[in-house]
Amino acid sequence: MQIGFIGLGLMGRGIAANLARAGHRMRVWNRSSGPVAELVALGAEAVSAPREAANAEALFLMLSDDDAVRSVLIESGVLASAPPGLTVVNLATISVLCARELAERHRARGIGYVAAPVFGRPDAAAAGKLNVVVAGERAAVQRVEPLLKAIGERLWPVGEAPERANVVKLAGNFMIASALEAMGEACALARAYGIDAATFLDILSGTLFAAPVYRNYGALIAAERYEPAGFPVRLGLKDVRLALAAGDGANVPLPLASLVRDSLIEALAAGAAERDWAALAQVALRRAGLDRRTR
Amino acid sequence: MQIGFIGLGLMGRGIAANLARAGHRMRVWNRSSGPVAELVALGAEAVSAPREAANAEALFLMLSDDDAVRSVLIESGVLASAPPGLTVVNLATISVLCARELAERHRARGIGYVAAPVFGRPDAAAAGKLNVVVAGERAAVQRVEPLLKAIGERLWPVGEAPERANVVKLAGNFMIASALEAMGEACALARAYGIDAATFLDILSGTLFAAPVYRNYGALIAAERYEPAGFPVRLGLKDVRLALAAGDGANVPLPLASLVRDSLIEALAAGAAERDWAALAQVALRRAGLDRRTR
Amino acid sequence: MQIGFIGLGLMGRGIAANLARAGHRMRVWNRSSGPVAELVALGAEAVSAPREAANAEALFLMLSDDDAVRSVLIESGVLASAPPGLTVVNLATISVLCARELAERHRARGIGYVAAPVFGRPDAAAAGKLNVVVAGERAAVQRVEPLLKAIGERLWPVGEAPERANVVKLAGNFMIASALEAMGEACALARAYGIDAATFLDILSGTLFAAPVYRNYGALIAAERYEPAGFPVRLGLKDVRLALAAGDGANVPLPLASLVRDSLIEALAAGAAERDWAALAQVALRRAGLDRRTR
Amino acid sequence: MQIGFIGLGLMGRGIAANLARAGHRMRVWNRSSGPVAELVALGAEAVSAPREAANAEALFLMLSDDDAVRSVLIESGVLASAPPGLTVVNLATISVLCARELAERHRARGIGYVAAPVFGRPDAAAAGKLNVVVAGERAAVQRVEPLLKAIGERLWPVGEAPERANVVKLAGNFMIASALEAMGEACALARAYGIDAATFLDILSGTLFAAPVYRNYGALIAAERYEPAGFPVRLGLKDVRLALAAGDGANVPLPLASLVRDSLIEALAAGAAERDWAALAQVALRRAGLDRRTR
Repeated sequence: MQIGFIGLGLMGRGIAANLARAGHRMRVWNRSSGPVAELVALGAEAVSAPREAANAEALFLMLSDDDAVRSVLIESGVLASAPPGLTVVNLATISVLCARELAERHRARGIGYVAAPVFGRPDAAAAGKLNVVVAGERAAVQRVEPLLKAIGERLWPVGEAPERANVVKLAGNFMIASALEAMGEACALARAYGIDAATFLDILSGTLFAAPVYRNYGALIAAERYEPAGFPVRLGLKDVRLALAAGDGANVPLPLASLVRDSLIEALAAGAAERDWAALAQVALRRAGLDRRTR
Repeated sequence: MQIGFIGLGLMGRGIAANLARAGHRMRVWNRSSGPVAELVALGAEAVSAPREAANAEALFLMLSDDDAVRSVLIESGVLASAPPGLTVVNLATISVLCARELAERHRARGIGYVAAPVFGRPDAAAAGKLNVVVAGERAAVQRVEPLLKAIGERLWPVGEAPERANVVKLAGNFMIASALEAMGEACALARAYGIDAATFLDILSGTLFAAPVYRNYGALIAAERYEPAGFPVRLGLKDVRLALAAGDGANVPLPLASLVRDSLIEALAAGAAERDWAALAQVALRRAGLDRRTR
Repeated sequence: MQIGFIGLGLMGRGIAANLARAGHRMRVWNRSSGPVAELVALGAEAVSAPREAANAEALFLMLSDDDAVRSVLIESGVLASAPPGLTVVNLATISVLCARELAERHRARGIGYVAAPVFGRPDAAAAGKLNVVVAGERAAVQRVEPLLKAIGERLWPVGEAPERANVVKLAGNFMIASALEAMGEACALARAYGIDAATFLDILSGTLFAAPVYRNYGALIAAERYEPAGFPVRLGLKDVRLALAAGDGANVPLPLASLVRDSLIEALAAGAAERDWAALAQVALRRAGLDRRTR
Repeated sequence: MQIGFIGLGLMGRGIAANLARAGHRMRVWNRSSGPVAELVALGAEAVSAPREAANAEALFLMLSDDDAVRSVLIESGVLASAPPGLTVVNLATISVLCARELAERHRARGIGYVAAPVFGRPDAAAAGKLNVVVAGERAAVQRVEPLLKAIGERLWPVGEAPERANVVKLAGNFMIASALEAMGEACALARAYGIDAATFLDILSGTLFAAPVYRNYGALIAAERYEPAGFPVRLGLKDVRLALAAGDGANVPLPLASLVRDSLIEALAAGAAERDWAALAQVALRRAGLDRRTR
């Protein structure tokens, strides 16, 4: 199949590589040229404009936010010049509003649009082990399903309205942020009573909370190792903000998301924008004055 | 070994049965006589006062709160008349203040005191699969270790100060409550966009959140099945209150625990005192008016 | 002086009338024609497009939000065709981002821009008793100062960067919302102990809290009279959202604004969009189940 | 009238002095002897035990908390040996539970009990300008009314159940704490945009918020002058904790009180226990990193 791929960041390069390895013909484009070489080495063609990548049966987008997606699809003219038969697969975590607008614009042009945000860190992307939440019109989803299976361990269909996949992704990221806040506060409490974070988190993530979120982030918190970031505070805040906006748009109060929002801003204000968002645990320690108390 | 056991509630009866089956001589006492018969059938002796149960090498307590523990140990004269060589094993979830006071009183009388709160629901208690957090003076802990192994899948030692085990238990229960609040809010958001709770929770508890807390409580939330309660709102509120008091006593702000406290009180005010604390999800739905919106 | 006035809602009509009565030549425009007649009766000229109103020395805008302001100034071509010497006076409560963008656009066109959001309800607007927060370049502010004195009891200058006036207005509205939430929760607590809201609020607003916010809104809460709205939940939520966005844009966590945001959304979800935002007190009662308890 | 007075702290000495100046015969007792001399100079008799002070027609208590009140009334034997005809007037801010227990104990002994917590700082106490919230059985209240008028500007009766007066006091202090949190957050927001706290608070406390709470505390916040404390963080936290307990006891969620609780604990953890509780504004600045940003 002829595939275009736009956005070769930490996540995108692993995903694109899996599509290339699956034997598809790839045209790739990225804002900076660095990561393109990796893909070319796997047989992909480097193109000089987003519109050229779109000359394909499926166009994958792995971009950082609403603005980046709009810039590529609308302002660069990708959508306006898209060939008939194209299906756009948007892997990005975007807002509900943007998802709805894009769905509408694609429908108006007769171009397929599938929202397919993913759960997983860069290593899962490289290993083709992502969890892919999928929403879009049935026919469009069917066309790209084999491609999604090449990049993910499992597909999770949630209906035909594309924004639903984005809501699931945002709600999921909100749940991760909540788990980080809970671990941070609980560890601050434990430490104030002389129990170190590693001991405490071992008990929990070895029993009731034996899940990747608690084991992986728990290890970062126990080691106070927030750099390099798998997912930085800055992007975490963006996603919690989008979850709150989704709630706002449907009259759903989200007090826990609000609380996490403020903790993330507090982390930002303390200079942690580029640290892993597990650094929420630092905020909890600082509030308790435990960053200054001798251990 | 000669063992006394006081408190044959949903948890206590399973634990006591495992000790009896392990071949120990048991003297059991309970406020109401109903559950005593089960233990007698396993060879235990029913006694008519807490002090008689304490005539043993180890005395287990599985009571509901600080008041019940103080009533039995202090007011009923158990501690005052305890035989030399007794080690008290307190399985109850009590406050940090009460734990410290009890440790001090036992020390003054030369009686061993081990805090051993457990994680696990009644079925785990019956199956001897609890996770037991243990704290107390080394010698006392060693004396009762074989008994704790008979009731738990794993022991988690956290030091010599008994209140540490209680802090771990309270912090752990706070984390469960936080997970419930997060699931509740996330499901309300999902549902407002047409995604049912079962679909949403399957995705999360099948991937990043594949842990007992999310799978078990997620199933209750998806089915909106809050009765009979495994652990009722009323007791959940008690434990979150104790976690907040522990934070207060050590200058640790716990904004997420505060948020959950208020949600649990809101559940109580709506008549859910005896529903499972997973009913926090109902509070989130009601706030969004989704309990009244047609689906 | 020749003045244009756009936006004759509940607030705008009173303000415009005061300018007309002060003897200025007015050209007025409003989306719907109803309120225009009142002004014409005071000697104003009704014009058929925003651009005609802008043919003046000063152009006042009293519009509901960012979109309405952008629509009039940018999309209707007001700014593009503004005559040299015009000073735009923007009375609307808009976002910091919009304020900055507008300041920049006016500067580029050489048109004066003064932000002058007001505190006060419609009756204060009609009486010329508003409090006007003013920010803009010194010369521009000086040109319109006599006009602002005609509509307000007092001017509060806060510097040259226009967005500062908007920040003060948003922070002030956030403080009002916080006072409403506090009164709501305090009254729920009082009522649960048999003290009615009127008695409780009399004590507070007669002593430590003897200020218009507490007296005026306190009277609404005591009487549970939320309609007609002086300022509806819907607009209150808009302003708290803008305060949060202002905080987000400058790394300032605002946990209390977040809390109020969620309470306002809860009010919306309960159907209170068009009730006065003092209806926050209803949310507090409902959370405590006091809307259902017999009194 | 023969009056006993126990508790000559910052508030108590001013109140007792006003009773002495009104011509009553006073017997005073205080834990430390320092403040007693002042009263003796006004004609009061210093006694050596609380029980001696109680040998009177009315006994005033101005103590710091539940424990101090219980220690004096119960443990020191004041209530047990109280003469017939005594009416106890409890000015302290105590918990609802303690108020109920005391009312019950006095009733059982046939001793009058009036709860009369006050609003006002030490200067208002010295000037006899307190606002006194009064609750108790009608006859008991009538007996002490002339005395209460000697110490307060105004009496606010709220019924016969004594705990009601305490609820009003706790709810009022919660409202003050909420106002401090709101001012703190709003000032942090203003300052992040270059507006100093003094300018911002002048606007608000000169208009909508023209009340003592905003003017007095606003001045402290604008000047960042938190020492000496009129009312320290430590006691503020105590009262917010009691408000939360009152809510808990009647199924009233108080999310704003919870938020303030955590902010006060954060202040404590930063070493502000003895600063004025207006230091909540420092917490808001620190969260935004504005304590470190150059101005």
